[in-house]
Amino acid sequence: MSNTPAYDALIARSRSQYHLHHLAMIAGVDRETLMPPGGAEARALALAELQQVMHARSTDPAIADLLKAAAQEELDDEARADMREMTRGYTLATALPAELVEAKGLAASRCEYEWRAQRQANDWAAYLPNFREVLRLSREEATRLSDALGLSPYDALLETFEPGMRGAEVSRVFGAMRGWLPGLIAQIRDKQAKESVIEPVGPFAFEAQRALVREMAEALGFDFTRGRLDESTHPFSGGVPEDVRMTTRFREDDFSVALFSTIHETGHSRYEQGSPRGWLGRPIGTWRSMGIHESQSLAFEMQLARSQGFLERLAPRLVHHFGAQRAFEPENWVRAATRVVAGKIRVDADEATYPCHVMLRFDIERALIAGEMQAEDLPAAWDEGMRDLLGIDTRGDYRDGCMQDPHWAGGAFGYFPCYTLGALYAAQWFATIRRATPDLDARIAAGDYAPVFDWLGANIWSQASRWTTPELVQRASGEALNPEHFRRHLQARYLTSS
Amino acid sequence: MSNTPAYDALIARSRSQYHLHHLAMIAGVDRETLMPPGGAEARALALAELQQVMHARSTDPAIADLLKAAAQEELDDEARADMREMTRGYTLATALPAELVEAKGLAASRCEYEWRAQRQANDWAAYLPNFREVLRLSREEATRLSDALGLSPYDALLETFEPGMRGAEVSRVFGAMRGWLPGLIAQIRDKQAKESVIEPVGPFAFEAQRALVREMAEALGFDFTRGRLDESTHPFSGGVPEDVRMTTRFREDDFSVALFSTIHETGHSRYEQGSPRGWLGRPIGTWRSMGIHESQSLAFEMQLARSQGFLERLAPRLVHHFGAQRAFEPENWVRAATRVVAGKIRVDADEATYPCHVMLRFDIERALIAGEMQAEDLPAAWDEGMRDLLGIDTRGDYRDGCMQDPHWAGGAFGYFPCYTLGALYAAQWFATIRRATPDLDARIAAGDYAPVFDWLGANIWSQASRWTTPELVQRASGEALNPEHFRRHLQARYLTSS
Ligand SMILES: [Zn+2]
Ligand SMILES: [Zn+2]
Repeated sequence: MSNTPAYDALIARSRSQYHLHHLAMIAGVDRETLMPPGGAEARALALAELQQVMHARSTDPAIADLLKAAAQEELDDEARADMREMTRGYTLATALPAELVEAKGLAASRCEYEWRAQRQANDWAAYLPNFREVLRLSREEATRLSDALGLSPYDALLETFEPGMRGAEVSRVFGAMRGWLPGLIAQIRDKQAKESVIEPVGPFAFEAQRALVREMAEALGFDFTRGRLDESTHPFSGGVPEDVRMTTRFREDDFSVALFSTIHETGHSRYEQGSPRGWLGRPIGTWRSMGIHESQSLAFEMQLARSQGFLERLAPRLVHHFGAQRAFEPENWVRAATRVVAGKIRVDADEATYPCHVMLRFDIERALIAGEMQAEDLPAAWDEGMRDLLGIDTRGDYRDGCMQDPHWAGGAFGYFPCYTLGALYAAQWFATIRRATPDLDARIAAGDYAPVFDWLGANIWSQASRWTTPELVQRASGEALNPEHFRRHLQARYLTSS
Repeated sequence: MSNTPAYDALIARSRSQYHLHHLAMIAGVDRETLMPPGGAEARALALAELQQVMHARSTDPAIADLLKAAAQEELDDEARADMREMTRGYTLATALPAELVEAKGLAASRCEYEWRAQRQANDWAAYLPNFREVLRLSREEATRLSDALGLSPYDALLETFEPGMRGAEVSRVFGAMRGWLPGLIAQIRDKQAKESVIEPVGPFAFEAQRALVREMAEALGFDFTRGRLDESTHPFSGGVPEDVRMTTRFREDDFSVALFSTIHETGHSRYEQGSPRGWLGRPIGTWRSMGIHESQSLAFEMQLARSQGFLERLAPRLVHHFGAQRAFEPENWVRAATRVVAGKIRVDADEATYPCHVMLRFDIERALIAGEMQAEDLPAAWDEGMRDLLGIDTRGDYRDGCMQDPHWAGGAFGYFPCYTLGALYAAQWFATIRRATPDLDARIAAGDYAPVFDWLGANIWSQASRWTTPELVQRASGEALNPEHFRRHLQARYLTSS
């Protein structure tokens, strides 16, 4: 008989939830990739029913007793990590009254649904009342979580996406970046203004693009015996570690959308596929945080795949799949794939300007949740931030301004910083890999990505939720989150290369 | 406030189960169509977890109290039909102890899994002990169900697939057929022996086959806004009424596999898509029985699509998709698609010989469940039955003899009769349609299938589980199940046409 019965009972419950979560993920993937329009309503009801089952299980008061009892049992370090995650999960799950969860879910669904047309119509006035209601309920959510977690309201929201990260720390990091990033972008743009670049010219046949992205996923180690690559309107990596479903999308006039989104999602997917088998179903076996997850996709997409060596190897493959054109001459292709252009749209941004989009959103959402800014103040704050950070005029353009993202409409406050935290972590990982493998660039240029995969596997994938995020960062890289690595990366790639 | 609170509570529970069932179906479809091999174990665990949740809900003792209370409420006729189905469902769900369900599930999984290789190896000796254990547990299951339902053990199993049908009734019908079917088959074979038939010659390009089957599904009214047609090793119709997923499979040397399996599954699918919207989630809204379901697929595949008029219209479409060949000349193609050949394999059988395969299995499984036959007696009984019914020697050939089907290995006793009941019902539906539409054959030959779809829609699809199966048959056709319609159909198609 086990001498840790309470802990064992908690793990059994964790496994049951893991199994049900599997079905939610697969049904969600099917919805995005295959489901005909007529199935939408029934699918939504089915997933809501499953969420209810899972919510009831995750808030069962018996868990509180089991957590208390298990805390008295003799547990090894890994089991204690399980306990840390289960305690956090139970606190989060029980912090919100069911009526609030339901009210916010409804308001967010309506706001996000109507946002699609309102955004197209550039109709801020119609969007505002819906958004105000979502904000109101998100503030209430933040207050409740704040009480339960003993954190500030914004920090409590951040905790749901990036556990261990605090608004003050993000502020410190983003504040430092604000000091050097705009100037660095200006330098890059000055340099690139002197370079001529030929853009690839389509159409690019879908079949050729499919072959290219499949080849890429394979070259980057995606395990097709435990996953698939399909198509959806918005690329994602979903499914479960045993069966990872990633998607891409194809534009006939621009293969780079499919190419780089596949590489990005392959990074996410390998993190999932690299989860330790023996930990699956245990809290310790889960991916660590949104920021760490994004650090994997950006390690692949930005650090590895936009490096000169990788891009130069890619050039002949483009010729192979699409036929020769001058844009695919290696030197030109490297330039074409590393252009820095300040634009209005976050999701289209290059890696240098992307953090500016995130810093703007971080400042605004923090003020919104703190009650220092109201819903109606959003457009003015947006216009000001875009002007200051990127020198772009967004006045009157809600569509490609403050209405461009679905996150806030869906009630996700505290999510945006994770994108840039991911970029910073990714740069930090590569700085660490480079210290251990001084000839890294030559290895990559030779098509040998093993130093990258081995390091990520050993330091990130296999660690799953063994450590808190700050512990993970410290153990992997020998220091806390440090945006200097990202600055050096941008300088090396955009200002010192030929 | 409702004055039927107990009934309402039962319906709310029914809807919840319906939503969870949705996820089981979609995850099952994904497993058969997309899932990579590495995902199998996690998927099995996930589906088992969901089954546990659904089983716990369907056996909740509170249901017994609600059923008792609802029986005292003032319910309309439709609600009483709900009550009839819920009572039956609760009785079946609670009849079996959990240990028996688990033991049988495990034994059946093992037997079915190992059967795949054992069948290939023609290894009866290795199969026997697994099969014996499945039979032992199936007998125990039958006994338990018998106690709960007040039926004989075999009838109790039959009740789980074809509610309202009894072994004695099947015996009566099959007994009558035994009197005339072997002779009729002999007559058909004599007649066909004098006709020369040219077989279509492949290869048939997959893309052309895909276009053909899509065209067929559309012509037969499959609603692609509420369903999909995909591929799987074994064709099926699955999913849910709001999102029906049917599949087919393609053989390069034989397009008829994809063609007729698609037509068959379209029949199943239209039954589902024709479920009354307002009843979805209620017990009354479910398909009636396995036999009635199969009567829809066979109405499409055999009654409609193998009719002379339909086949003649199909011929030029084959030329369109595959190019001209002599086999596609209408007269020849009609003959090629209506050949009657006695063979060893049930799933490859034509509509005339198919019932012989089923009658053999019915006799055997009834004796097995009654304890009048033992597992080791199966091969001898098989050889004797195949010789008597179809004049075929199967001695020593377990692979294409008594080991050819997965049903018994999986513990499904009482299922086989439904195939032929479906064929008999389908003939009865068409006899009824023909009475109402005397020019039916001319209408079909002109591509007007509305008389068929309208009648099936009004009499079968829209009725769902409103009536018991015998009531449904009586209301739809004006009489009880009558195998004479099937006999007349075979005579008309195979013995009187040119
Ligand atoms: Zn990402
Ligand atoms: Zn069928």
